[in-house]
Amino acid sequence: MGKVLQGIAASSGIAIAKAYRLVEPDLSYEKKEISDVEQEIRRLQEALSVTKSELEAIRDKTKVELGEDKAAIFEAHLLIVNDPEMISPIEDKIKSEKVNAEHALKEVTDMFIMMFEQMDNEYMKERAADIRDVRKRILSHLLGVKIVNPSMISEDAILVAEDLTPSDTAQLNRQYVKAFTTNIGGRTSHSAIMARSMEIPAVVGTKTATEDIQDGDLIIVDGLKGEVHVNPSEEVIQSYRDEQIRYEEQKAEWAKLLHENTKSADGHQVHLVANIGTPNDLEGVINNGGEGVGLFRTEFLYMGRNELPTEEEQFEAYKAVLEGLNGKPVVVRTLDIGGDKELSYLDLPKEMNPFLGFRAIRLCLEEQDIFRTQLRALLRASVYGNLKIMFPMIANLDEFRAAKGILEEEKQKLINEGIQVSDDIEVGIMVEIPSTAVMADQFAKEVDFFSVGTNDLIQYTMAADRMNERVSYLYQPYSPAILRLVKMVIDAAHKEGKWAGMCGEMAGDELAIPLLLGLGLDEFSMSATSILKARSQILHLSKKEMEDLAQRALQMSTTDEVIEAVKEVIEK
Amino acid sequence: MGKVLQGIAASSGIAIAKAYRLVEPDLSYEKKEISDVEQEIRRLQEALSVTKSELEAIRDKTKVELGEDKAAIFEAHLLIVNDPEMISPIEDKIKSEKVNAEHALKEVTDMFIMMFEQMDNEYMKERAADIRDVRKRILSHLLGVKIVNPSMISEDAILVAEDLTPSDTAQLNRQYVKAFTTNIGGRTSHSAIMARSMEIPAVVGTKTATEDIQDGDLIIVDGLKGEVHVNPSEEVIQSYRDEQIRYEEQKAEWAKLLHENTKSADGHQVHLVANIGTPNDLEGVINNGGEGVGLFRTEFLYMGRNELPTEEEQFEAYKAVLEGLNGKPVVVRTLDIGGDKELSYLDLPKEMNPFLGFRAIRLCLEEQDIFRTQLRALLRASVYGNLKIMFPMIANLDEFRAAKGILEEEKQKLINEGIQVSDDIEVGIMVEIPSTAVMADQFAKEVDFFSVGTNDLIQYTMAADRMNERVSYLYQPYSPAILRLVKMVIDAAHKEGKWAGMCGEMAGDELAIPLLLGLGLDEFSMSATSILKARSQILHLSKKEMEDLAQRALQMSTTDEVIEAVKEVIEK
Repeated sequence: MGKVLQGIAASSGIAIAKAYRLVEPDLSYEKKEISDVEQEIRRLQEALSVTKSELEAIRDKTKVELGEDKAAIFEAHLLIVNDPEMISPIEDKIKSEKVNAEHALKEVTDMFIMMFEQMDNEYMKERAADIRDVRKRILSHLLGVKIVNPSMISEDAILVAEDLTPSDTAQLNRQYVKAFTTNIGGRTSHSAIMARSMEIPAVVGTKTATEDIQDGDLIIVDGLKGEVHVNPSEEVIQSYRDEQIRYEEQKAEWAKLLHENTKSADGHQVHLVANIGTPNDLEGVINNGGEGVGLFRTEFLYMGRNELPTEEEQFEAYKAVLEGLNGKPVVVRTLDIGGDKELSYLDLPKEMNPFLGFRAIRLCLEEQDIFRTQLRALLRASVYGNLKIMFPMIANLDEFRAAKGILEEEKQKLINEGIQVSDDIEVGIMVEIPSTAVMADQFAKEVDFFSVGTNDLIQYTMAADRMNERVSYLYQPYSPAILRLVKMVIDAAHKEGKWAGMCGEMAGDELAIPLLLGLGLDEFSMSATSILKARSQILHLSKKEMEDLAQRALQMSTTDEVIEAVKEVIEK
Repeated sequence: MGKVLQGIAASSGIAIAKAYRLVEPDLSYEKKEISDVEQEIRRLQEALSVTKSELEAIRDKTKVELGEDKAAIFEAHLLIVNDPEMISPIEDKIKSEKVNAEHALKEVTDMFIMMFEQMDNEYMKERAADIRDVRKRILSHLLGVKIVNPSMISEDAILVAEDLTPSDTAQLNRQYVKAFTTNIGGRTSHSAIMARSMEIPAVVGTKTATEDIQDGDLIIVDGLKGEVHVNPSEEVIQSYRDEQIRYEEQKAEWAKLLHENTKSADGHQVHLVANIGTPNDLEGVINNGGEGVGLFRTEFLYMGRNELPTEEEQFEAYKAVLEGLNGKPVVVRTLDIGGDKELSYLDLPKEMNPFLGFRAIRLCLEEQDIFRTQLRALLRASVYGNLKIMFPMIANLDEFRAAKGILEEEKQKLINEGIQVSDDIEVGIMVEIPSTAVMADQFAKEVDFFSVGTNDLIQYTMAADRMNERVSYLYQPYSPAILRLVKMVIDAAHKEGKWAGMCGEMAGDELAIPLLLGLGLDEFSMSATSILKARSQILHLSKKEMEDLAQRALQMSTTDEVIEAVKEVIEK
């Protein structure tokens, strides 16, 4: 008894609760000839009827807890179950071919799915996905197999899954989900980012969680050490309850720093800001003592819809964030879509290497309508706060000049239309492509600021897809190569009197912070929930000593040496 | 009359000949009910009979011109056409279902293809591809549509294609093919590399060649300017004939440099060596004045077969190259497979971003059996010439140390077995990942040499897949960012008394050579056919002046500025 799984600590904290497995059920069946047609049709109708009540329950619960928007999809699913044009052919098939309901359901729905998928219309194509979802549900009732309904969770639970997708997490009731643990993923996977934003612990990359954990097992997710305890002994539970209390106490200690500046032990001030995705994240920024927003990922405004957001919709979102932060700086990144982030209504080409493809600023410079609409919305919102605009995936100065040129054009147009625009908007770039780090001295003459995007910068610098398990060992934030590039960027900025920030995962990492402080980073942008801990850490570090550490690290030959040196310094 | 297409000059020279379009024929048909079964079966049999004679003719011609090996595939195709187990079911289907021969052919062959494809055996899977090929041929005769048979070209011709694949070019009779022009591709595409190795002109990336050129059109491919003239006027033809003569004269002039060293006008010596793929390429290296081999791509030994090459097979190939070069240096790159280069018999995972994936040294360090076999073959061959071993895709020092450690182990084992091994084999690395260029000073303490692989280094440094048309504008060899990385590598090597070469396309490029000479590059490895021209160019350049040029280029902000500066210097 009492198995312990090792994984990656992806979101800190400790949770103790029962396991809820979010895994695909086995819905396989055999095609069978049946003799009693009437009985088979009754089986189908019963399954349909249970499916309907289930869908209605989910719809109602979702409506109350997550709003009309999120409930709409279940409304669509109900329409399918209630559609005689879909159901009658299934009954006809059972009658005429004397086959079991499972097979008849499969054959008829296959035909509809194929029909919808062949239509040259995104809306219709999504109907095919809806039919698949509904079929799965009906089939589960025909087979008497339990299907997972995460939206129906109504008591404290820890989700156990192979991995969690955005659509899995969208329907979750956050009140009851106390932690995640997954088989795959790393610190930058969707599950990890979600957990940090929900402020619940997570351990990812356990490899075997879905095998080793059964529904209802009592588990402990230790998001500090990266461990998952399955059915632990009473002693272990008790020691974790104590640990939970200590952690809460530590959090209370950190909370005292809520309204403090962030200064090193020897008085050097830096800025701790947050990465956000929607105006809803603002509350977290303020509650966690964020000194502003270092990265507003605007993709979320474009996702989960059937068409581009209008200038007005975007204006409202940007205005809300700027006003919400009450004059604190907000760095908005212009659209970073393409690559692995697709939009169903934009017909982007399939690419062999999407991470090296047509995305972000590359797409915006070509699809200028989309880009100009966003820039106009930003410019109009600029008078409501302290806006800074940041272009993603800039690879050379030509691209920056082109993007800035378009921004200037739109600004001039607005002014000509008599619309107010702030006249001190800083315009900067993400540094996430090696060439841009190498050329930082040239960029620094023209941009107002840099923000290093480490997630991409590391994967390009090491030529290793960070989502690919087989090469993820090369995703090394503490590699001297990365530190040297970061130093180039910071030094270049300071030489021209500009500031340099970082908005990748690395900026909130306990082992990276001493190095970054030593390299002279001005602004650290991280998950809001990491800010107080980071502030507390920096308070105890001497900038001078960290400079020495960083200088030594730059001359080391491997990542392991760097990690060892940092540990030596912070454990002192 | 007289249209001119603009493309990318991918292989130099001028060719004037008739066009031969290598394009996929339209083999679409409708399923039809037929009344006269006998007549339909006669149609099928006639098509089969024409297919047989055609395949026999191609087989015989291939055997004479390209050898038994290449002819074997057509023998396999003939077995299919003659196989009653394949043909009878087609006839049965026509009889029983009263359908047209096209439809019956499709249905029956589909079944066989599916059967073979589902087998867990590479040999059987390839049979599925053979059936597809044969079906296409039979269908073309049923429909009376012309199918292309490039191996049957028997008069001078210029190939016009969307793109050329390795299998297209494998069957070509090189005697008659005078040039290529394609719609897509760039200087590093397969078509371009093939053309340079065949020493024929090529213009790629014309976008519309297959639309604008008809079979039999007289065309001129100008591989110097990157132009294709379609049905040009007599004057244009005459002026190109004069140009051809001038070009031949220039080549004769270059040929005088065959046995010369490569020295700049002010006496600085560099080494011009060749990139090769098989021992067959040796002749070209010698005939073009190569001072050795700077890159022996060993992948070719592993491709187009059903299993790994044995140690003995590899030993023979390496020995042949080392002996053939008679003491001149031969840099052998260890296996660079994975990514876009697949081996059917190695079960590699499908990856979302193969260029950032599990390939080259990453794979070799995990699949150590494959790696050790290659290293043993190399070590055994080392006594037959001047061998240098180079590891590809090295991202950090840990990888280099691991690879070198394995090499040392195998060397010691061989010595213990009493087998002779050279004791002065240099061991170096490709620099094709940004982190490695940035860390070159650390690497230089441990490696014997560097060779910059620009094709990959550029795509990773710019985060742009060089095969992706939509971002290929970012593939900028003359970017100051690339020049800075190259400088880091050369300076690091020289500081430790090591040498630095380059084996990407850039090393043979007329605009890059002045910059590389100025940066201090020691060894330029290129297509053999570029060597004499490069030698002639360097002879006329002053190292001192090129140093000034390079220094200025490093401080420029865009690629265009660099190109302009180089042109100014070389056109002086």
